[in-house]
This record gives sequence, C-alpha cells and structure tokens, in this order.
Amino acid sequence: MANEVDAARIARYHPPSGMASPRFSGVSSFMRLPVLAPAEAPGRIDIGLIGIPFDGATTNRPGARLGPRGVRDASTGTRALNAATGVPPYDLAACADLGDVCVNPIDVAATASRIEAFYTPLAEAGIVPLSVGGDHFVTYPVLRALGRRRPVGLVHIDAHSDTDDGQYDGSRLTHGTPFRRAIEDGVLDPKRTIQIGLRGSVDAADELDWARGQGVRIVPMDTVMVRGLPEIVAEARTVVGDGPTYLSFDIDALDPAYAPGTGTPEMGGFTSREALFLVRALGGLDFVGADLVEVAPPLDPSGITALAGATLVFEILCLLAQAVATRRGG
Amino acid sequence: MANEVDAARIARYHPPSGMASPRFSGVSSFMRLPVLAPAEAPGRIDIGLIGIPFDGATTNRPGARLGPRGVRDASTGTRALNAATGVPPYDLAACADLGDVCVNPIDVAATASRIEAFYTPLAEAGIVPLSVGGDHFVTYPVLRALGRRRPVGLVHIDAHSDTDDGQYDGSRLTHGTPFRRAIEDGVLDPKRTIQIGLRGSVDAADELDWARGQGVRIVPMDTVMVRGLPEIVAEARTVVGDGPTYLSFDIDALDPAYAPGTGTPEMGGFTSREALFLVRALGGLDFVGADLVEVAPPLDPSGITALAGATLVFEILCLLAQAVATRRGG
Amino acid sequence: MANEVDAARIARYHPPSGMASPRFSGVSSFMRLPVLAPAEAPGRIDIGLIGIPFDGATTNRPGARLGPRGVRDASTGTRALNAATGVPPYDLAACADLGDVCVNPIDVAATASRIEAFYTPLAEAGIVPLSVGGDHFVTYPVLRALGRRRPVGLVHIDAHSDTDDGQYDGSRLTHGTPFRRAIEDGVLDPKRTIQIGLRGSVDAADELDWARGQGVRIVPMDTVMVRGLPEIVAEARTVVGDGPTYLSFDIDALDPAYAPGTGTPEMGGFTSREALFLVRALGGLDFVGADLVEVAPPLDPSGITALAGATLVFEILCLLAQAVATRRGG
Amino acid sequence: MANEVDAARIARYHPPSGMASPRFSGVSSFMRLPVLAPAEAPGRIDIGLIGIPFDGATTNRPGARLGPRGVRDASTGTRALNAATGVPPYDLAACADLGDVCVNPIDVAATASRIEAFYTPLAEAGIVPLSVGGDHFVTYPVLRALGRRRPVGLVHIDAHSDTDDGQYDGSRLTHGTPFRRAIEDGVLDPKRTIQIGLRGSVDAADELDWARGQGVRIVPMDTVMVRGLPEIVAEARTVVGDGPTYLSFDIDALDPAYAPGTGTPEMGGFTSREALFLVRALGGLDFVGADLVEVAPPLDPSGITALAGATLVFEILCLLAQAVATRRGG
Amino acid sequence: MANEVDAARIARYHPPSGMASPRFSGVSSFMRLPVLAPAEAPGRIDIGLIGIPFDGATTNRPGARLGPRGVRDASTGTRALNAATGVPPYDLAACADLGDVCVNPIDVAATASRIEAFYTPLAEAGIVPLSVGGDHFVTYPVLRALGRRRPVGLVHIDAHSDTDDGQYDGSRLTHGTPFRRAIEDGVLDPKRTIQIGLRGSVDAADELDWARGQGVRIVPMDTVMVRGLPEIVAEARTVVGDGPTYLSFDIDALDPAYAPGTGTPEMGGFTSREALFLVRALGGLDFVGADLVEVAPPLDPSGITALAGATLVFEILCLLAQAVATRRGG
Amino acid sequence: MANEVDAARIARYHPPSGMASPRFSGVSSFMRLPVLAPAEAPGRIDIGLIGIPFDGATTNRPGARLGPRGVRDASTGTRALNAATGVPPYDLAACADLGDVCVNPIDVAATASRIEAFYTPLAEAGIVPLSVGGDHFVTYPVLRALGRRRPVGLVHIDAHSDTDDGQYDGSRLTHGTPFRRAIEDGVLDPKRTIQIGLRGSVDAADELDWARGQGVRIVPMDTVMVRGLPEIVAEARTVVGDGPTYLSFDIDALDPAYAPGTGTPEMGGFTSREALFLVRALGGLDFVGADLVEVAPPLDPSGITALAGATLVFEILCLLAQAVATRRGG
Repeated sequence: MANEVDAARIARYHPPSGMASPRFSGVSSFMRLPVLAPAEAPGRIDIGLIGIPFDGATTNRPGARLGPRGVRDASTGTRALNAATGVPPYDLAACADLGDVCVNPIDVAATASRIEAFYTPLAEAGIVPLSVGGDHFVTYPVLRALGRRRPVGLVHIDAHSDTDDGQYDGSRLTHGTPFRRAIEDGVLDPKRTIQIGLRGSVDAADELDWARGQGVRIVPMDTVMVRGLPEIVAEARTVVGDGPTYLSFDIDALDPAYAPGTGTPEMGGFTSREALFLVRALGGLDFVGADLVEVAPPLDPSGITALAGATLVFEILCLLAQAVATRRGG
Repeated sequence: MANEVDAARIARYHPPSGMASPRFSGVSSFMRLPVLAPAEAPGRIDIGLIGIPFDGATTNRPGARLGPRGVRDASTGTRALNAATGVPPYDLAACADLGDVCVNPIDVAATASRIEAFYTPLAEAGIVPLSVGGDHFVTYPVLRALGRRRPVGLVHIDAHSDTDDGQYDGSRLTHGTPFRRAIEDGVLDPKRTIQIGLRGSVDAADELDWARGQGVRIVPMDTVMVRGLPEIVAEARTVVGDGPTYLSFDIDALDPAYAPGTGTPEMGGFTSREALFLVRALGGLDFVGADLVEVAPPLDPSGITALAGATLVFEILCLLAQAVATRRGG
Repeated sequence: MANEVDAARIARYHPPSGMASPRFSGVSSFMRLPVLAPAEAPGRIDIGLIGIPFDGATTNRPGARLGPRGVRDASTGTRALNAATGVPPYDLAACADLGDVCVNPIDVAATASRIEAFYTPLAEAGIVPLSVGGDHFVTYPVLRALGRRRPVGLVHIDAHSDTDDGQYDGSRLTHGTPFRRAIEDGVLDPKRTIQIGLRGSVDAADELDWARGQGVRIVPMDTVMVRGLPEIVAEARTVVGDGPTYLSFDIDALDPAYAPGTGTPEMGGFTSREALFLVRALGGLDFVGADLVEVAPPLDPSGITALAGATLVFEILCLLAQAVATRRGG
Repeated sequence: MANEVDAARIARYHPPSGMASPRFSGVSSFMRLPVLAPAEAPGRIDIGLIGIPFDGATTNRPGARLGPRGVRDASTGTRALNAATGVPPYDLAACADLGDVCVNPIDVAATASRIEAFYTPLAEAGIVPLSVGGDHFVTYPVLRALGRRRPVGLVHIDAHSDTDDGQYDGSRLTHGTPFRRAIEDGVLDPKRTIQIGLRGSVDAADELDWARGQGVRIVPMDTVMVRGLPEIVAEARTVVGDGPTYLSFDIDALDPAYAPGTGTPEMGGFTSREALFLVRALGGLDFVGADLVEVAPPLDPSGITALAGATLVFEILCLLAQAVATRRGG
Repeated sequence: MANEVDAARIARYHPPSGMASPRFSGVSSFMRLPVLAPAEAPGRIDIGLIGIPFDGATTNRPGARLGPRGVRDASTGTRALNAATGVPPYDLAACADLGDVCVNPIDVAATASRIEAFYTPLAEAGIVPLSVGGDHFVTYPVLRALGRRRPVGLVHIDAHSDTDDGQYDGSRLTHGTPFRRAIEDGVLDPKRTIQIGLRGSVDAADELDWARGQGVRIVPMDTVMVRGLPEIVAEARTVVGDGPTYLSFDIDALDPAYAPGTGTPEMGGFTSREALFLVRALGGLDFVGADLVEVAPPLDPSGITALAGATLVFEILCLLAQAVATRRGG
Repeated sequence: MANEVDAARIARYHPPSGMASPRFSGVSSFMRLPVLAPAEAPGRIDIGLIGIPFDGATTNRPGARLGPRGVRDASTGTRALNAATGVPPYDLAACADLGDVCVNPIDVAATASRIEAFYTPLAEAGIVPLSVGGDHFVTYPVLRALGRRRPVGLVHIDAHSDTDDGQYDGSRLTHGTPFRRAIEDGVLDPKRTIQIGLRGSVDAADELDWARGQGVRIVPMDTVMVRGLPEIVAEARTVVGDGPTYLSFDIDALDPAYAPGTGTPEMGGFTSREALFLVRALGGLDFVGADLVEVAPPLDPSGITALAGATLVFEILCLLAQAVATRRGG
C-alpha cells in the first residue's frame, strides 16, 4: 500500500518481536514503539501515540493521571498483526511514542492550553494523534487542535455523555463538559456526533436535552441492547459519514467487571467482546485522531483495566493506520 | 402522584446532587439520604434503608458484616433519577437511612431477636424496609416482622436455595436455612415463592426436594439460560401475583467476575446487565420490603461488588418507591 | 454403574461434606479428596489429581507455579454432585490427590523428564490423570506419557495455539511450543486435534500454518462467535471421534474479567457460562486425561481465577469419571 | 474538670461503646461521634472533627480526597480512653463530626475560599477544629481562618517542608506551598514554627532557605535520629512556647511500611511508635486546631494507612481536649 | 539427645528439604510435615500442629477462620534448623500436622466443646499441641484440656488483655474473654500469668482491674518500651517459673505494618525483630502447649501476616521441641 | 569537581525536575534519565543504569522479572540531590538508562551469556553499571564481566548467603549460587567479601561453611543487632579495603513489612532507615559497579517494595557517582 520511500520510512518504526526479546523487558513505550520527541515527528511518522497524564478535571475518584504509565506497561504485550481484522498497523503507517504532554496537575485551564499547544503543530504536520488519558476533559483541547480548520465528527463510546454545562457553581472545564465546550467552540460538529453506551442513574431528566438539541445522536446502553450492536454501528457510520472523524473511547464504557480501574464506573456496561466488535466495525471511516481515556490503575489491583485499555489502543491504532494508508493511497 | 402534603414531606428527604457537592464527600449514608433514628421514622418516611452488619451465620468465608459500610460508601455515586426506567424514587417516596440494627456478632439467635424487634415497629407503621446485609440469614427475622399478619410472597435471586434444614449436627439458624425457617414459621408463602439463578455443585440430589415439596418454584441458572430471562420474569410475576411481595437479592447471584466479594461465589452467574434487567422487569409488583445481602468487601480489593450492590439497591429502591406511590394513590 | 467390589473401593475416596465439616477447614487437597502417594495409586484409584507447580517455561508473566496451591485451596468449595449434568463423580470413580510432581523450577528439560517419569507408571496402571499447572509447557511431557502407545486426540481450549517452533534463538521447550513438540514426537494426533478460542494479536500472519498443515483444526474466538458454541462443540466431537482423547484447558481461554490471574491474558475471551457449557458439552468422549493450566494466583488478589480453575477442574473430573465408568462398564 | 453545666453538655457527645454495639456497625462518623451541622455547633461543642475531601492541589499521586471517608471508617475502632496517657477526651470536651467541607475538586482557589468560609465562623465561636484531609494544601485556608486575629505557632510533622514558592511556571497554590502562603499572609508565625521529620531527595540545595530565613526551625529525619525524639520534642515545645499553636500531621511522616497509602511516600520515615510518642509528648501545649492529611486509601489495599491516620486523629483529639479543658478551667 | 528408639521414631517425621523439592510444591501441611490423624498420634509423635479455623467469637473484623490455611501455605518456606538459636526442632521431637479441629462456624459453645474434645486425648497422651487459630477464643477450650489436672502458667503476647467478662448484654464466650473464663474454670493460674504488649485505646479505665486483682501481671507496650525487652522477658520467666506453661501469641501483638491481616489491629506494636527476640528469649521454660492466633489472610493481600505467623510458629515449635527433649531427657 | 569538558558532558544527562513536569509523566526511565543504546554509551556517560528482567533462576516465588519495570516507575519520584549526604549525583557523573539486557526467560545459561556479553564492553569502556534485577543470579554474569581482569571485592546485603553449590540434583546456576560461582571463577575475591543481614531458618548447620572457608566474612542479622550497624559498616570497609568493590543489595535484606514484594521474604530484616544508613555509610569506597535485585512487584499490591528499591538505587547511584568523581579527579 505504501510506495518504496514510505515503506522504508515506515519500517524504521516497527516494534521488536516478543519472540526475540521478552515483552516485559525494556523501557515501556506504547506498543514498544520508538520514542520520538514531538519536534522530530513531522516528516518521519504518520501516527503519534501520546500520553496525557492529567486527571485534574475529575469530579469523582481520581487516578487517571497514572493511565498513560499503566497503558504503556500493558501495551507491551500487543503484537504486530491484528489477527481478527488482518490489519498490520506497523506496515501501513509509521508510528512512534511521542511521550507525554507536560501537564499542570492542579490547573485545568493551563493544562488545556498546554495540550492544545502540543497537538496543534502535530495537526499542522498531518500527524494523526492517538492519545491515552487522563480524564475525559483532555479530549477537549485535542479537539481544539484537530478541529480548528474544520470541525470533526465524533464516535464517542462512553457510559456518560460529558456534555454538562458546568458543575460546582460554574466550573465549566471538568471531565463532564468536554464535548459541550468543543461544540460551543465550533471544533466538533454535533450533527456528525454519536454517543454510544450511556447508562447509569442521572441527576435530571433533561440533562441530555442540550446535546440532543444540537443534533447529537445519543444511544443509551438500553437501546444498544434492544437494537443490537450491528445496527448501532451502521447508524454510527451514517452519522459521521465520510468526513474527518475522531474516536473517543472512555474505558468506563466497559462494565466494571471488565474495567474496574476507572473513576466513575457504572454497572451494566459493554463486555470486552462487544467493545472489540464495536471498534473493529468502525474500520474504513476517515479517522483523524482518537483517544482512550479514564484508565485509573490505582483503582484496579489486577491490572485488567490497563490491559483492556492497551488492547483497545491497539485496535484503534489499526483503524488509524488504515485511514492513513487510505488517505496516502487515495 | 403525591398530594401536596405528601410532596412536601417527601421533598425533605432528597439527597444532595453531585453537581453541587462531590459524591465522595460527607458522611456516607445510603444514597446520601438523611440519617434518621428508627423511632423518628413513623409518619415521616415511606421507605427506610437499613444496614444489618451480621455475618455470624456464615458457613463459608466471612466478611459480609462489613457489607453495609461498603454499600453505603459505594451508594453515594447513585443519582436522583433512574434513566433506564424513568423512575424518580425520591419524588415518589420519602426515604431515609435508618442506620444499622445493633447485632450481636457472635450470637445468631440473639441477633435474630434484635432484628425482628427492630423491624416490627417499622412494619406496624407501614414503613417499607430495604435492608443491606450481612449474610442471608438476616432475611429470616425480617420476614418474621413483615409476614406476621400475612405471609409474604418472595422473588429470590441467588446462586443458592438457602432452604437447608440445618448443618453441623443440628445448627438450624445459618445463612443456608432462612427460607425454610420462614416457611415453617408461616411468614413466607412457599406457593408464592420463586428462586432464580441457582447453580453450582450440590451436596445431594435431593437437597431441594423439601422446598419443591412446599410449592416453591425453583429456576436454576441452566433453565434461565434455556428459557431466557423474559420468560422467567413472566413466571415470577405469575408466581407472586398481586399479593404483598418481598424481594431478596443475594449478590452471589452475579458471576464472580461481577461480584468477587462474596463468601460463597459460584462460577457461571448472572452478568450485571442481566441482573439489572431482572430487577427492572419486576416493576409494578406489590413490594413490601426487600434486601440485598452477602456483599463482603474484604474479599474484593477492586470494590466492584459493593458498587454492584449499591446499584442494585438503587434499582430496588425504585421498585419500592413505585409500590409505595401506587399504594398511596390507589 | 460399578459392581460391588468397585463400589466399595470407590466409596473409600469420597470427600467429606461441607454440611459436616466446614469447607475452609482441613489440609487443602484437591476437592478435599484423600492424599495418596503415587506408588500406592495403582489398583486403588481410577483418577489421580496431580499438581505440576512449574512455570519455568513461561515467556511472559510468571506465577503459575503457585497454581496447584491456589486451585487446591479454591477446590475445597466444590461439592459431591454436578447439579447441572447430574454426574456424581465420586460415585463413578475412585479419585485421589496424588500430590505434586517434584519439578526443578529452573530447568525445563529436567522437569520434562521428571513429569514424564511421574506419569508413565500411572498411565501403565490405567490411572487417568487430571493435572493442574503450572504453565502450558507441562502438557507436553504428560502427553508423552499418555500417548506413547497410541497418539491421543485433543480438545484444546485456549487463547493461544502453543504450536510455535521456538523462541529466543532456539529455545524449543517453552509454554508456546508443547503441542508442536507432542505432534513431532508422535504422541499427539494432529488430525484428531482441535483448538478453540484463539484470539489476540499475533506476531506473524503465518504462525499457525504449521499446525494447520499438520491437520490441526483451529477455531479462533471470532469464529466461535459467528458460528455459536453448539456448532463448535459438534465439530470438536467429530474431530476427536471415539478414540482416546485428552482435554487441555488453559485458563486464559476465559476473558480477563473472569480470569485476571494468568500470565498472558487476552481481552475478548470466554465468559464463565460459555466455558462451563463448552466443558459439559464434551461429555461422553473417551477421555484418558486432562489438565487445567496457567492459573497464576499472585496476579489475582480477588481469587476468582483460582475459583474458576477449581470449578473447571470439577467439571472436567465429571467428564473423566464418566469416561472411566463407561470404559469399566463397557 | 468541667463544671456541671459543661459536664452535662459534654456527656451528650459521647460515642457508643463497642461493648454494646459492634464497632463496624452504624453510619461511619469520626470516632462514632454524633454528626452535627456546622451551624448548630456553636454553643454545643468544643471540638469539631471535619473532613476536607480535596486533593486537587496534589502534584504527585492523587487519592487523598477519599481520606476523610477512609479515616471515618477506620476511626470507629478507637475507644473512649487513651490508655497510654490516661486522657478521656470525651469527658473533657464535647466533640462532634461536623461533616465535610463542600469542596470543588477541580478548583484550588475556589476550594480555598470555601474552606476558609467554613472555618471562620467556627473559629469565631471558639470551636477547635480537627481536620482530616485531603492533601496538605487544605491546611493553608484553615490557618487563614484560625490565624486571622493572631498568627498561630505550628508543630509540623511531615516528610516534606511544603514551603515551596510555586510549581509548573507559577502555580502558587499546591500541596507543596501551604506554609509559605500562610507565612506570607501573616496567619502563621514562622518563628514559632517547627518542622520535624523531613527527608528524601530534594530538587535543590537551597529549597529550604526561604523557610529558614523566615525563622522556621527545620529538623530533618537524620537529625531526629542523631539527637533522639525526646530532645526534638523539647525543642518543639520551646519553639512554639505557650502561645496558640496548630498541629499539622502529614501521614507521609510515617515510613511507607507504616503508611503506604499516601501520594508522595518517602523511605526512611517514622515508625508508628515514634509517631505516637511524638504526638503524646506534645501534651499541654495551647493547641487551637490540628489536622491529619494525605491519607490516600486507594493506594493502600491493606487499610493500615487509614488505621494509622484514625489512631493519630484520636491521639491528637486527646491533645485538643486537654487544651480545651485547660482553657476552660484556667 | 534422644535415644536410639526415639531417634528412629523422630526421624520419620522430618520435612523434606527445599533443596530437593521446591518449597511451593506439594499439599500444604504445617512445615511440610506429615499429616497424621489425631487418633494415630499417640505413641508416634511428640508435638502436634493443629489448625482451629474458627472466628465465630470475633467481635471485630472476621477472617481468622482462614488463618490455618494461610499459615500452612506460608509455613512451607521454613527450613529444618533455627539458625539464630541453633535449635533443630525435628531432631528433638517427632512433629506432625494433625489437621484441623472440625469446628461449627456459627456456634461458639458447640465449637468450644469440639475443641476440648479434640485436645483432651492428646493431652492425656502427652502430646504437646501447637495450635494455629482462628480467633483468640479458641485458646480457652485448649486450656481446658491442658489445665484440667493442673492449671497452667501463661506467657501471653498480645495487643489486648482478652479478660473481659462479656459483651453485648451477656455474651460470655467471645474472643475478648478466653483468659477470664480459663481463670474462672481453674485451668489457668493467674498468678503464673503475664500479658505483654497491651496497647491501644480502651473502653474504661478499670477494664483490667479484674485481671490484676486475680494476680495477672500486665505489661503494656509503653512499659515494654521504657524498661526494655530483656527486662520484661526476665520478669516473664520469673512469673511463670518452672511449672507447666502455655504460650499464646496473638499476631496483633505485632504492629499493623508487620501484620496488617488481623481483625483488630492496633497501631504501635512490636516489630518483627522484637517478636523474634521475645519468643527466642523464652527458651528453656517448661512449655506444654502454645498457639498463634488471629491471622486473617483476607485482610492482607501481601501475605506478610501469614508469613510472620508461620515464622513465629516455627520459632515456638523450637521452644516446644526443646521442652519435649528436656522432659524426655530429664 | 569535573573540568569544563566533563561538566558540559555531564550536564547533558540531567533528569528533568518535578517542579517543571510532573514526576508521574513521561516514558518511565530510571530516574527519568535519558535512554541511551549501550553501544552509544562509551565516551558519553560514566554510569549506566541497566535492567535485567530475569527471574528464571528463582527457586521460590517468581516475579522479579518485572522488577526493572516496577523500579523504573517508582524511580521517577527521586530528585536531583541527596539531602541526607549532600551528594548531587548528576553533577558528578553522566548517567543514563541503558535499557534492559535481552534475556531468555527460560534458559539460565543462555541468559548468563547474554548478560556477560552486555556488560563486558561497558566494563572495557570504564562505564560503571548499576543494575536492577531480576533475581540474584544475575549478579554472577555481571561479576564475570567486571572481575575478569581483577577479582572485585563485595559488600553483599541480603537475607541469604547465596553461596549454595547447587539444588535439585545438580542445578548449579540458581539464585542461591551466584557468589559461589563467582568465587570459583576467580572474578570475586572471597577475602574481600562481606555478607550482611543473613537470617531465617536454614537447611543445614554447615551450609555456610564453604563460604567461610573461602574467607568470606558473614554477619548474620543477630550479630548486626548485637554489635550495631556502625561497627558492622566499619568492618565492611576494612574487609573490602581500597580495591575495586561491588555492592549487591538484595531487597529481601529488608523486613517483609518494608519489602513485601520479593520471592523469599524472611521475617526480622532491616528497617528502611537501617538500610539507608548502611548504604550511605559505605560512601568513599572504590565502587566499580552495583546492583539491586529481587524486587517482585506482583507480590506487593501497595508498591512500597519498588519504592524502596528505587530509593536504594538512588542512594547507590550517589555512591557510584562519588567513586566516579574521585577516580576522575584523583
């Protein structure tokens, strides 16, 4: 799919095989990929994996600031080829670990600026970011960087809508508000946005009215169960269409049995097989970025949440690599 | 649904919103509800949430005495409205945390008396109890208080039948015997009793014969799988009919993946979505009380068992609030 | 099914009931069965439960050497009768705990010899071994003992194929190679071998080609989902036919939510109910041995992995006892 | 020590004995004390125990926002009389649990205002606050409330000085800066301040120069070891003298073996016996408030950190009760 | 030290070396010793290690019923020779694991009878019991068996005195009362009894008056610290003199850092080195039995409590073996 | 201390400050140091931190292969200056993380070769290695590389002597034999070797005779307690003298309370303050290499073992940096 120059470039960023060196060995980078300074990325890589170790916008249990570390460690167990879909991501796109954004753990607004400043040059250079949070607030400044020229569409998989207006007498930058802020800023297209898997008790009957009023398509878990995942995926593909699209996966979309290590778990979520089905079924969309957020390792002594996060990052990476290859080839 | 006087009364017992004060803050009461002394409950509230921190009748691994504490902590994450069913429990019924029964951890019989003495005046005052165990033995004295005038029907969701006659050369008050004792005492109507989800290896082929002989309807997990939950729920509704009914949910009905923190886990149980479906589908029955038992926090470092317990308590609370509103309005 | 002499012999090996002595009491043997020295087994018992506490062939996270200890502890919770299938294993076959193979934790080859030497006289005496690992390498020497006269068929339930040729520049005895070695040695019949539940990313697209070339039937998890478990089980029965068959169950076939305590967990595995269905549906095959491997207790603070392992060992024991009774009676 | 009126008032706030009702039962308040709304406290109680569930100023691992919940649960195990010192705190002073400050988890400045607003009327009413954090930042607004009329002295037991000027390009309100801010604001008297137990690696050789320049007495752990605790305590008594004094105890003063559940543990800290000695030896000082901070329960699955925190809160409560009784009597 | 006949007998009960078979392998018996039915013990062994898996008298957090299992598992790591004292216990006395007493987990009185019935024939046969609890109540029926002919003296190492009269309106058989009951029954000589390490808050100033009035020597932890362990040990030796003596070690004598897994931990306890010193320094007393109680494995995910328990059991075994050898030789 | 050229070179390898970027952020390298390929190290750095993720020679509980990962994560909390000793390691020597040796987890001999091959060119280039294990076997091949020209002296801090000859019928390469092998190979000078902190039960009275016979100085923990650490340190300095010396620190030298996460914990070990004292007191010796081994993160859910390991690595790094500076300057 790549020409010779690209192929040579891409081959430089192949992770080592666990058949040669053990998967638990070496400095833990995402997928055992080379670590590259962001400034060196343009021209060299297609996809940048980036940690955003920030949970300062969390209104419930904290710990997601340790998510990038946990996911990096768990991700070293993934291998080179997606056996289920046949996608060989590292043959399609040059990928590297670009390290973490330097956040300010006690200042939401300052961190938002730092994140946006980190992603903007990458976006300018056409590098596709795959981020690991951190709490869900971090998606907002990423969208500001990616959607500044044209608002992106969104497939949002989550137990919560995260379209609140504010909390605690006016705090408007929390992990419950990122998508509202992004819509208000014009970097996210609400009519090309779908939210899948919402569930749990709510504070008020009208709390999703604003989002729905903007045109956001909301599919609660109950609806998913009734209609079935294939139909929901088809609807998602219709909603986002063929425009540039972002994928945001909150690990709390999974049931607590599958992902206990997250700040606001909600009983009754997706199983791991459903989550894998859902992500894989999105193949072929024009993804320009993605994230996996809310993994909080201290809340899960068994480590399966970071493992699920890392596996989903690998699956999403396959989607992004396909999109990169398609755009390159198309 | 409530008249003005009731509405004003009910409004006094509304939990604070997590949008104003964080859900992890404050003294942990069930659902963040006001704490009321039992003696002050009559005339003020409709539903009393009560802890019974007793596991002295446990024949397997202990720890359920810490269940009320664990469930209280986890329950502060539930919100005001059941998004799946649309039920706003705190608008339908005045609810309060009535604290814990003062049990004697080393004396089963004494504790049985204390529990019965705690619940009898509440029952007399028409207050609907929603209890959190504790091991499953505690259901027996509660049923003695509720069924003393008229035996109640029962929807019993559990991995075990708990209708043994005794254990260890004659101990007749264990967490394996409550429903047999209740039937013998005439406070539980076996013909209006259904047990759902039984599974695991058994000691003898005839150990459920007594219960079946009394007319109890027993639906093992295998049968649930074959016939499907909707059909089982329909049967449950038929079995208990429109008489006064009690709901007893043993957390070990869930699979160990969903509820590792319980004394006698059995592989192959309900998923969380099935459990939610099952409880929600019981809406409209004439519930006069309910309990959630066998959450043993020390056996689950991830805390998902207490979370599942708290979520189910919220769902059951919605059922009870509906029943209260129906009886008030009818 | 057994004649009087057999019945008397078998009755000597019945575990005590938890109704008389608590299940958590006593020295922990498998299923609370009597402990017998291997040399005393011939003529006395039909099925020997054996621990193989070896994880020295593990290329990922270790800990399975503590599997036999963990499974023994958890197994004391199983009871005398399989309520789902009606099989009373201890009435069909005399079973005992034969202790652990004395392994050399730092020497794979020496341990292979020790295992083979342990199992060979048992096989000669017609005692059916049910082993608890240890990592999956241990199956290889067991197969060498069982298949030396006639290669056995295999139902292999696992997330991984374990038919690699080698790793790390030529190490050919790892937990990723046992079935290749067994086929090469002529003790495993590849045409009567089926592998069910494979999933996860892979190192290379052709890594299963050798096994497929030998005639091994491979059913990845995705195929299981599409075709459904009943169809897969039917195929398994066809593949192994009515010849002598071995059952090897790697606990990582389960999803990490159900079995977090294993060295190489892969997201998207079987649920516990599926695993139980799968094992139970194999009833009636001519099993001559079985194992349950890769339970690593230190990686699971909740203990549900050892519980799942112990429950599956009980279910498999029922299969073996049926096979023993059938062979005796036939 | 108290006159009749006081004695009667005080007697109303006595926790129930564990000899009558089990210590694990009931809604968990600090020391099982009555829960009182802050507005009702003036005139009724002498000492208010208050939770401040805020860790939004944490620059390292979070989790201390769950400290008040964890310490409340663990504190129910303390009893009525300090056997080591003979102090019966609940006979000397009326104590109650005043609940938690309603913090804003994502806004340090807003939370500082809320804390100060919570404590100011209590300070005006002469109620002595004993607070449970939360991260160490929370001490700063408490000192603003207590020291507004006259700067207080301070005994500060901690692994860290917490007198930084700022972090991350100018964030001046972090858990590393509270005492610098308090000194700058004139609510803490640096010349009556002593810091005990500092240790661990540091960023720069001069990072304590500012504090020392202000007159703060700093006693690193190494010095404690050389000179011995009795001598250090004597020095502390000299430093703070007989003026109004605050005691701030950061749980990370303890060694990680004794308090693993804290965000910034430092090897080489106090043992539990040393900590108890240190606190007890401060008896007789004119304490006007105190706190225990940085207990982060999610980081300690064994719960010993919350236990240590609760025990130290009890010991400190004895100091405060003595001071209250002395001031009343004097 | 033993004659030839004894030497041959003793040699039959030697645990296997970890140099030959790994310490984590095999069915876990105490110290890897042979398992013997109690009825077979007389004439064969000198010391019987016995589990008493009962925590039904626990008034605080449960879990000690799993103590024997946990200590057995951990004890397989001990070796043949006490390097510190030079004592080779298995050369001095024939030791075996006699399994567990068959307790009734929900009936204190019935269990007391069963324990006494288990120990009485052993005592009659001159077999020295070394028991592993279970909660501390179990010491009472053991003392009834050992002291029936002549009251024993006692070295009691514990955070609590356990000489309460009763709890919860008259329950007289709890883990807080064993020594009072034993003194009342005349099986424990209070004047030859010393309690070491008491600490923590207490319910009332006079709660130790009864014990002191009986002549019990009580040494709180504070006194230990002031006077030093050597002096306390000397006093213990004087108190018990050269009569038959029992040693009862409650694991909560250790600080929670060293033994987090116990039901009623108290901050400020012994370090492991102090505990080892204390036990070793008691060598030469005429011990006729001993126990180690209150290890509750579910409360300690790291396992160090069971390790400490197992190590102390080994050290105590050395004391008992010495006493056996002395009595045999003397 | 360094000339201008050296100073400039050294300054390139300074870890970032936690005051600028949070300590939990970024790819986790040892001490947040730059990661350098070993081939690039010569001429650039003075000290190389190296992980050896191998536990294939472990005869007890495994897990140390995850030690380098755990220590890297924990080490990011250390800062630039040793406050206790005043040593600024990164100003004295250029330090980098050289990644992990590519081990073969299932082959001890092959791994030994790989380790030796990794260290030999570093040793030739004069780069001082500071290794993180892995089990203690890994020290042997490191010593082969360092001592090939001249045998080194050794300060060995450990609970075990690790001078066995073999185990399991002749396995001579285990984590119990490295120092015997090194002495036999002539790369370790037994007369300049001291072992400190040995304790625990032993297999045989003569098991240290070989080591003592070679001239190794052995100081059991009991001796340390009697004589005091200062005297032991003085002896250690005398034993090793001013020749090239290696420091090997097994984390199980610490008491299990301080380091639960290790494969063979022994009750009664060093406290963290003693360990810090011991390491710091060795300052000024001519260290040519060092290691910290046996941290097994899966065995410690609280993480304090990795924290202790990381802190000790920092302290040892200070010793090495001093030695480097001294050699450069001398």
